[in-house]
Amino acid sequence: MKENIKRAIFRYSSPPSIKAFSSVAGKKESQGPIGEYFDECCEDSYFGEETWEKAESRLQKTAVQLALKKAGLDASSIDILFAGDLINQCTGSTYGLRDFNIPFLGVYGACSTMAEGLMLSSMAVNGGYAEYSLNVTSSHFSTAERQFRFPLSYGGQRTPSSQWTCTASGAVILSGTGNAPFVLGGAVGKITDFQIKDANNMGAAMAPAAADTIKRYLEATGTKPRDYDFIITGDLGSVGSVLLHELLCAENIDICDVHKDCGVMIFDGYKQDTHAGGSGCGCSASVLCGYFLTKLFNKEINNILFAATGALMSPMLVQQGESIPCISHLVHISNDRDFLLRRGEEK
Amino acid sequence: MKENIKRAIFRYSSPPSIKAFSSVAGKKESQGPIGEYFDECCEDSYFGEETWEKAESRLQKTAVQLALKKAGLDASSIDILFAGDLINQCTGSTYGLRDFNIPFLGVYGACSTMAEGLMLSSMAVNGGYAEYSLNVTSSHFSTAERQFRFPLSYGGQRTPSSQWTCTASGAVILSGTGNAPFVLGGAVGKITDFQIKDANNMGAAMAPAAADTIKRYLEATGTKPRDYDFIITGDLGSVGSVLLHELLCAENIDICDVHKDCGVMIFDGYKQDTHAGGSGCGCSASVLCGYFLTKLFNKEINNILFAATGALMSPMLVQQGESIPCISHLVHISNDRDFLLRRGEEK
Repeated sequence: MKENIKRAIFRYSSPPSIKAFSSVAGKKESQGPIGEYFDECCEDSYFGEETWEKAESRLQKTAVQLALKKAGLDASSIDILFAGDLINQCTGSTYGLRDFNIPFLGVYGACSTMAEGLMLSSMAVNGGYAEYSLNVTSSHFSTAERQFRFPLSYGGQRTPSSQWTCTASGAVILSGTGNAPFVLGGAVGKITDFQIKDANNMGAAMAPAAADTIKRYLEATGTKPRDYDFIITGDLGSVGSVLLHELLCAENIDICDVHKDCGVMIFDGYKQDTHAGGSGCGCSASVLCGYFLTKLFNKEINNILFAATGALMSPMLVQQGESIPCISHLVHISNDRDFLLRRGEEK
Repeated sequence: MKENIKRAIFRYSSPPSIKAFSSVAGKKESQGPIGEYFDECCEDSYFGEETWEKAESRLQKTAVQLALKKAGLDASSIDILFAGDLINQCTGSTYGLRDFNIPFLGVYGACSTMAEGLMLSSMAVNGGYAEYSLNVTSSHFSTAERQFRFPLSYGGQRTPSSQWTCTASGAVILSGTGNAPFVLGGAVGKITDFQIKDANNMGAAMAPAAADTIKRYLEATGTKPRDYDFIITGDLGSVGSVLLHELLCAENIDICDVHKDCGVMIFDGYKQDTHAGGSGCGCSASVLCGYFLTKLFNKEINNILFAATGALMSPMLVQQGESIPCISHLVHISNDRDFLLRRGEEK
């Protein structure tokens, strides 16, 4: 069996089925343009806990409970749980998920975590390592802000290119058997570093990573942007999205008609004062699990590429004069189980 | 294909071959009882860099370069690179490995990272996702100390149960074809939390995680401790090792004769003033890649279980009154490719 059609680009011989998915969002996210799509919205940004970090743990736990409930499964049915988040030591995941007693593999991909987790989860199910596999991630404005930027009580002016870390979570349960939608394959990202040193311009830092991964996947599969309903990026925001279009156009790849960015979609930048858009692991996770998977499930759309983007930024290293390395992982989700196999034969 | 013989416990149908392995260690580690086994020792704990974090990045980069050289491979031959470390945002990995241009999947398992990475890497090769896969991790005394404990210039008294974070790194390259030793399978750990809140007693916190994983693997494979030359834990140290023996004895599993702990082995606790032993991702990584894989390669030993242990401790959550969740992942390495398959038939 050879699942890699090209270096680190997969086409699964037994595409895993998306058994269930869930999304949980905070108040601001729920008031945004796609707020109605989230399963659960919480007015209280503490989620009933005493600290922001415990709140994020609760948020991630809630997303998993909801996904299990929607799948009609008990935690003991899940073979492997892939999770991670932005907070040091992946606090939201390890503290939030410890009570489930599910075999656990921690991942770190910053805001690309939803795609990384979904790829590893689908590799596990397609490879026969798990019958049911779950992946989850989250972010919380208040935990991220005080870890990566400033104390919450510091009311500094935000720059136009800055993004707003979403308080949100998303979870997906995959199964070796079942119905559409399916995860058909994916592409593992490479670390790219274009020497951006401005921690308030993550979109510019991440755009080259997304461009590289999307280009590699399209070329390896012999597909074109118009083959997809949407090519979705994680949280490039408005600044990074324009750069992505420019980078791909220079390679004669025009995704403008089908491109959507979760960071742009989740907030109304003007009304909600979020500047260049949303960000954080929970941004792409909740938009995928709230909006896009619902539309796939309802057959309103049928074929998407989901390329979450992550800034692997260490505040410590940026303080030491270093730049921001970035990454983008991609998963291909479709209602047509044989889309890629058929493409392979046509070529 | 069904590679999971029980929930999250794998027996590979095509066991990946260990193509090459490398270990790099700092001065103190090189002066320890197994110092002669490390490929490269560096007197300068800055590894020629300006800061500790950049030093750890350099350390991890060196381990990868060395492994590639020993394998006779170029970086472009590696399909996927699995890496992570203890430092926030996995700084050593993302900054240290960005120049290799290898598709990268970040993992977070604290000090269990070597086992987690090796398991994911072997799943990738066995599953046909990669022809060559690489995993690496590291730790550095000075980056870990100032992140998890105290400023380096603070000369506080260390408690007897405390451990010394190793300055070390280890890397393994797996191949879909090749000779012994092989990775036969493994067990994904579960997060366990026995409510230990003392960040200076990690051995006690981690012992239950190791006991659970080892017990599950022995039971699922129908093997006994005496079937192995060694059952190796990561960094329980002297305190945690005694607890592990007690926990397993209570389950009628006696591993005392074959148990080795990397944290106990790497330092001479009395002469080197390291108290309960070594710790850190680089501890089990360097002892595996320096000592044990060398002995397997030379056929001095033939069959080991490697159960690295990780304290998924968030200093922020411990300050908020929380306990320390822990995990232990296990990989089975043997010169006998069919050991597990034969066991399955005998049963």
